Amino acid sequence: MSGPLQAALAEIADDTNKLLAELLPDPTPLGEERKLVEAMRYAVLGPGKRFRPFLTVAAAAATGGDHTRALHAGAAIECLHAYSLVHDDLPAMDDDDMRRGRPTVHKEYDEATAILAGDALQTEAFCILAMPETHPDANVRLELTRGLAVASGAHGMCGGQALDLAAEGEASDMASDIGWAIRMQRLKTGALISFACEAGAILGQANGQARAALYGYGMDIGLAFQIADDLLDLEGDEEQVGKRLAKDAEAGKATLPGAMGIPEARLYAQTLVRQAVAKLDCFGSSANLLRDAARFSLQRQS
Amino acid sequence: MSGPLQAALAEIADDTNKLLAELLPDPTPLGEERKLVEAMRYAVLGPGKRFRPFLTVAAAAATGGDHTRALHAGAAIECLHAYSLVHDDLPAMDDDDMRRGRPTVHKEYDEATAILAGDALQTEAFCILAMPETHPDANVRLELTRGLAVASGAHGMCGGQALDLAAEGEASDMASDIGWAIRMQRLKTGALISFACEAGAILGQANGQARAALYGYGMDIGLAFQIADDLLDLEGDEEQVGKRLAKDAEAGKATLPGAMGIPEARLYAQTLVRQAVAKLDCFGSSANLLRDAARFSLQRQS
Repeated sequence: MSGPLQAALAEIADDTNKLLAELLPDPTPLGEERKLVEAMRYAVLGPGKRFRPFLTVAAAAATGGDHTRALHAGAAIECLHAYSLVHDDLPAMDDDDMRRGRPTVHKEYDEATAILAGDALQTEAFCILAMPETHPDANVRLELTRGLAVASGAHGMCGGQALDLAAEGEASDMASDIGWAIRMQRLKTGALISFACEAGAILGQANGQARAALYGYGMDIGLAFQIADDLLDLEGDEEQVGKRLAKDAEAGKATLPGAMGIPEARLYAQTLVRQAVAKLDCFGSSANLLRDAARFSLQRQS
Repeated sequence: MSGPLQAALAEIADDTNKLLAELLPDPTPLGEERKLVEAMRYAVLGPGKRFRPFLTVAAAAATGGDHTRALHAGAAIECLHAYSLVHDDLPAMDDDDMRRGRPTVHKEYDEATAILAGDALQTEAFCILAMPETHPDANVRLELTRGLAVASGAHGMCGGQALDLAAEGEASDMASDIGWAIRMQRLKTGALISFACEAGAILGQANGQARAALYGYGMDIGLAFQIADDLLDLEGDEEQVGKRLAKDAEAGKATLPGAMGIPEARLYAQTLVRQAVAKLDCFGSSANLLRDAARFSLQRQS
């Protein structure tokens, strides 16, 4: 990883963690709903790269958006992402016991608390976006709200999760279809990553061309990132990654390495990264962090 | 039920159903995520009183808010309410097989689809509120967005559900504490009902006094409505109500009839209704529907 990228990732992760610790409800003065709030904080404030907030901040930097506001919007997107992980780990979904080296929320607390904590974290995401700290212009905040809703609803993340489950049920037919697997990943993880990039451009009140470029960049690196994740699942070191591996393959899940083969998927990810970097040509050096991040997505170890 | 109330409830329910049928995603052009969208529609478009949209429309009428915009905001609140029912019925939560005379979503589809459909319905609620059709003024839409988030998150509905679950775990101590049961109900169902009333006032851009009056009215009738619901659970006719009864008592759930006794709870609900109606004194005849609705909350049969 390049020095500037490493420093920026660390700094934005640190700032995001501090902001989230302030923004999330405080359990101390509460009654028995304390457990819910503790589970929400457990889900969000645990270890994590804060890659989506990083993308929002870096895309804002490329389009003249304010750094502090971008951190605020990034914190909202991180809450949305955290909720999706909590629900995705539930027994009725992926049934995962470990996440980022710690017990998943329904293991650390219980299933009902995990359902409610995920629900309340989604609410929190929209609550944070609607705050004036995100942007003084109400129209900008509303555009972010609409964008987050579209990226995470039935035509975005939730739709992708439904596709993923459908493939698992029907086994090999869909899981081996490359076009199908790409569509599933673009919805399941790509939509929110693209929105994280576009959100920076919305905050920078960038023109349509710049917004589309950042959205497209997000789609490309989102898919490259997912391929890297799937390759880790197949080839990674369990201790370093912090969760049980080779699980997707066992469950017959649709992945691109599974559908097209490991070497082909690696090559495809490289093509996506080059394509993503090319989309940033209109930005000059203000987008250097985004360029570095695209290249880094291929070298993930955890 | 009074004639004008019955007519208004039926008309608003009908308009809300038509609007929701248009606003919710269309399953026909979709791939395997069709099932998710069908489950969302099943959850929302089934039988239901549309009591929350009614309150929003009636509160808008009392404060000079636009009828069509209030229907739009009401549709968003109904999506939020529907998501909470889908998740509340899950095996890890209340574990209900029937809802409004039909199989619950996880019974009609499956558990994973029910989790995702609830998630996507919450997203849809915020998406609908952010649409210009809700109100042309972006600040009004943002106020509604913040309001819905606060009413439904950890300090509102989700917090109330967590309290409800906590009582079930620890049995009699909390369930028999009247103050505790009131707080739980105010969060679990009161917060969203109050917000449905306040939303009408926000759309009518009413002054602080009118907003507070409608919010307080919502709190009072929300609790009266819940007591009526709990009395139905204890004394109602299973076929007419459309779900299994006496379930809360068996589960050791905290209810006000359980905590204070049935005759006392009935008296308390009557006091709440009188108090709610008194809060409407500042509105004159424009609030007659709200007055009728308050009185009706005591006479529910289903």
